[in-house]
Amino acid sequence: MQIRSDIGRRLRADDARVVSDVLRRGIDRGEHTGSLHERNLCAEFGASRNTIRDALAILAAEGLIDRAPRVGTHVVRRKAEHGLDALRGLKETLRDHGEVRNEVRVATLLRPPAAVARRLRLDAGADAVYIERIRLLDDEPVSLDLTYLVPDLGIPLLTHDIENTDVFTLLEEISGQRLHSARQSVEAANADPHSAANLDVPPGSALLLLERLTSLGPEARPVDLEYIRLRSDRISLHATALRDTTAPRETL
Amino acid sequence: MQIRSDIGRRLRADDARVVSDVLRRGIDRGEHTGSLHERNLCAEFGASRNTIRDALAILAAEGLIDRAPRVGTHVVRRKAEHGLDALRGLKETLRDHGEVRNEVRVATLLRPPAAVARRLRLDAGADAVYIERIRLLDDEPVSLDLTYLVPDLGIPLLTHDIENTDVFTLLEEISGQRLHSARQSVEAANADPHSAANLDVPPGSALLLLERLTSLGPEARPVDLEYIRLRSDRISLHATALRDTTAPRETL
Repeated sequence: MQIRSDIGRRLRADDARVVSDVLRRGIDRGEHTGSLHERNLCAEFGASRNTIRDALAILAAEGLIDRAPRVGTHVVRRKAEHGLDALRGLKETLRDHGEVRNEVRVATLLRPPAAVARRLRLDAGADAVYIERIRLLDDEPVSLDLTYLVPDLGIPLLTHDIENTDVFTLLEEISGQRLHSARQSVEAANADPHSAANLDVPPGSALLLLERLTSLGPEARPVDLEYIRLRSDRISLHATALRDTTAPRETL
Repeated sequence: MQIRSDIGRRLRADDARVVSDVLRRGIDRGEHTGSLHERNLCAEFGASRNTIRDALAILAAEGLIDRAPRVGTHVVRRKAEHGLDALRGLKETLRDHGEVRNEVRVATLLRPPAAVARRLRLDAGADAVYIERIRLLDDEPVSLDLTYLVPDLGIPLLTHDIENTDVFTLLEEISGQRLHSARQSVEAANADPHSAANLDVPPGSALLLLERLTSLGPEARPVDLEYIRLRSDRISLHATALRDTTAPRETL
């Protein structure tokens, strides 16, 4: 049985896109490392040499592979995986990938935007602690994090070693409570020129934007609101979905 | 107490980025609809008019707001939210946002790439059903979905109304079983020119890439592997993280 619709009108660009999608994830999953050989890929995908070349051009533009005459095609590196199911700081998450260090650009007390104050349930006119960090994995930027903290935890936090410690770890240490959960939203956006310079990517590069409202203790008090720009050539996000979800739903 | 580091070196671009991040999420959450007034935003963010204008320019470039002389600044529309915690088809998810329709570009039986066959646990040399769809919400493209299905379910599925029905719904109908769960990965990438044309966005636009391996029945048999490109100006993804996760972890 062979049902085909529109397959006659199919363009090489369509096939290259399919190959690039499957290959991108194969690289992410560590199934392809080191050199990639066009002939092997033609066999694996049942595709023409030109289709494979177009697919490799897509992945090269994303910074996932290097291509050069004579040297051939190489996987630059495997992306680090960041889970959206379990609440972990970047340093905890990337423990096996290398050394995480934070370049702290701002750490201050300020009047937050009204929307931030509402979500952190701050009193009218209350200040919040604001921290802006570039996070580096083995000295290369991975993310640009904007963090708003409730003042009772954020002010003591500023006296700790925020260059080398996850905010999550410090929040638990200072409060003596466990973090509870976080509500996260994920979007994609093109890097504005200034963010691109900070993250050392070309302007316009597709970045992941992660907003995360984290709550603390058995009452799930919201304490930490973050806006994170992630380099999508270095990090991928992961989540498990259940058909019949029984996961608790916070009303943060 | 006022701790500041590098605040003197701070650029307007930094402040504009902060405003754009908070405002983007405010628009997503429906806190800003209709007209945006620069003067109100200056007050809300404690920012200068020029900073607000730079922030609005970022959001205009992302297609979230329209700006025109005399007419002013308007929110184009609110993004639809797609949950990563509960396994739902697009039509189920967007029920309250409008009418979902699928433009089926390919629906065929083919030899899948080796990596796809492995993940669907297909026998060596077995075919899979491949479906390529542009998914439209109120006649505007939202996503481009590549779907590989195991043949025992995929072949009967091809005889159903895949223009107007979620694949998830059909898989449950045909198998007589409930879907179990899915493992999902999220990345961002710039739209290649051909994907951009299909999704009606400018080439290079940041898209969300969602890979989803869905399993069926109490044995959690993998049956459906999808590679989905989502327009990030129309959809945002959402997930809850728990500090001490007890969610079941499939080994798909």
